[in-house]
Amino acid sequence: MMPAGTIDEVRTAIAQARQAGKTIGLVPTMGALHEGHLSLIEAARDRCGFVVVSIFVNPTQFAPGEDLAAYPRTPQADLAACEARGVDVVFMPDFTQMYPDGCLTEVTVGDLGTTLCGAGRPTHFAGVCTVVAKLFNVVAPDYAFFGAKDFQQATIIQRMVADLNIPVEIVVCPTVREPDGLAMSSRNAYLEASQRAQAASLYESLCLAERMIRQSRPAPAEVVAAMRQLLAERAPDGQVEYVEIVDPQTLKNVQTTQSRVLVALAVKIGPSRLIDNIVVDAAD
Amino acid sequence: MMPAGTIDEVRTAIAQARQAGKTIGLVPTMGALHEGHLSLIEAARDRCGFVVVSIFVNPTQFAPGEDLAAYPRTPQADLAACEARGVDVVFMPDFTQMYPDGCLTEVTVGDLGTTLCGAGRPTHFAGVCTVVAKLFNVVAPDYAFFGAKDFQQATIIQRMVADLNIPVEIVVCPTVREPDGLAMSSRNAYLEASQRAQAASLYESLCLAERMIRQSRPAPAEVVAAMRQLLAERAPDGQVEYVEIVDPQTLKNVQTTQSRVLVALAVKIGPSRLIDNIVVDAAD
Repeated sequence: MMPAGTIDEVRTAIAQARQAGKTIGLVPTMGALHEGHLSLIEAARDRCGFVVVSIFVNPTQFAPGEDLAAYPRTPQADLAACEARGVDVVFMPDFTQMYPDGCLTEVTVGDLGTTLCGAGRPTHFAGVCTVVAKLFNVVAPDYAFFGAKDFQQATIIQRMVADLNIPVEIVVCPTVREPDGLAMSSRNAYLEASQRAQAASLYESLCLAERMIRQSRPAPAEVVAAMRQLLAERAPDGQVEYVEIVDPQTLKNVQTTQSRVLVALAVKIGPSRLIDNIVVDAAD
Repeated sequence: MMPAGTIDEVRTAIAQARQAGKTIGLVPTMGALHEGHLSLIEAARDRCGFVVVSIFVNPTQFAPGEDLAAYPRTPQADLAACEARGVDVVFMPDFTQMYPDGCLTEVTVGDLGTTLCGAGRPTHFAGVCTVVAKLFNVVAPDYAFFGAKDFQQATIIQRMVADLNIPVEIVVCPTVREPDGLAMSSRNAYLEASQRAQAASLYESLCLAERMIRQSRPAPAEVVAAMRQLLAERAPDGQVEYVEIVDPQTLKNVQTTQSRVLVALAVKIGPSRLIDNIVVDAAD
């Protein structure tokens, strides 16, 4: 496995892999790798002859006051985990490698980036799209792997790729969860024990939503109210940022739960802003 | 020469050229090809083993009320001109090929897109960048060729390419002019005889600016005032949109003409909005 700090090193390694006829897979991450990331690497390994993991805590997707400085950084453990899973190249650029002259260019994906998490983090998805577009141009992968926990991110990236004709296939892998249902996230590391216990309520509320929708297809507002009540009871220290039921393609609010819907929420518990979601199709 | 209407056809042809070890050149155009475009094609021919010309009047770079419907379309003559110059593929997509689901994604390049032409056409460069990013992803050229007449466009594309790590080299070719100095433009075709005669004043005013700067390096405002006076005299039917002296990299106004500057202007004469520019370095 090759750790690479520069774009030139990555491109050289990938050109060789291409010459050898290998399929290239990219797993873009911000490091602090957990089981969720590792499942993406395994999916890449299954499908691609040459796997690149990028590790870059991208400042442009954090707003002032967010947790850029505190974001966990565990490069040695990340490298060991990548080595153990047969990753070919770990691309770990520093800031000046990625933004030698800053970055005037911004890639945005319209309304998809202003709803859900975009309402509370208005500059976030422009930062994500721009850095992912850069990584796609550096690596030129055949496949790129994203987690379903970040459903909105995956939706936006898929739309960017389609709109800009980027020749990559996006693979969205299932959310990996702790035994109590909490979605794996690097930000779970911020939680104290009591906060950690309360954090399981996010997934509980999603499971409640799924049961309600499958049983009786109630109006979205009724489901949201029940979820908010559960969160208030089980996570008294939690601050709900949003609980929404939306169309999985457009991310716009739906009027009924008759067809396929995305149930998504963001809750701040202590220092951690946690997100989770499930897709429910009452007709399934 | 192959005319191609679909992205798949273009990609197939380019994959074959790549396999044959050829260097790929792209000349993006909106058609109505004139000597300026043909000079770009010749530059591409000189440098690349495989030349693609795209012809697409991109609606997203026109604002409502601009000349999208009137923009000249001469596909048969364009194809003949490309054939005569040894172009390998002419990519002529229709709207649904380029925007099958509309386009939520937008690529912008900050302040570079809001000054000069961007002040009067605030959505223009987002449309340009987005469609050029798409064309780069479809063709994956080694080199792409743009005319210096659209200096701001070339500057913005170069910055987008650098910021997004797009693996293409941008080649900017000199402005091609009519015998009286008028820069070649598809929009010159809109001009009646008396308007056409007045249109030469754009270049006259640029030559005046160059003489003044070389002689005495006057303050930018003095140069602009002299240019505006010349335009008022020589183009009485002209409406000046802007006359500006800016830094050629940042496109921001300069305080002196001591170092390298871009002198740029836009003037509406009858139905045609005409632009032109020169770079002057008093130290040369």
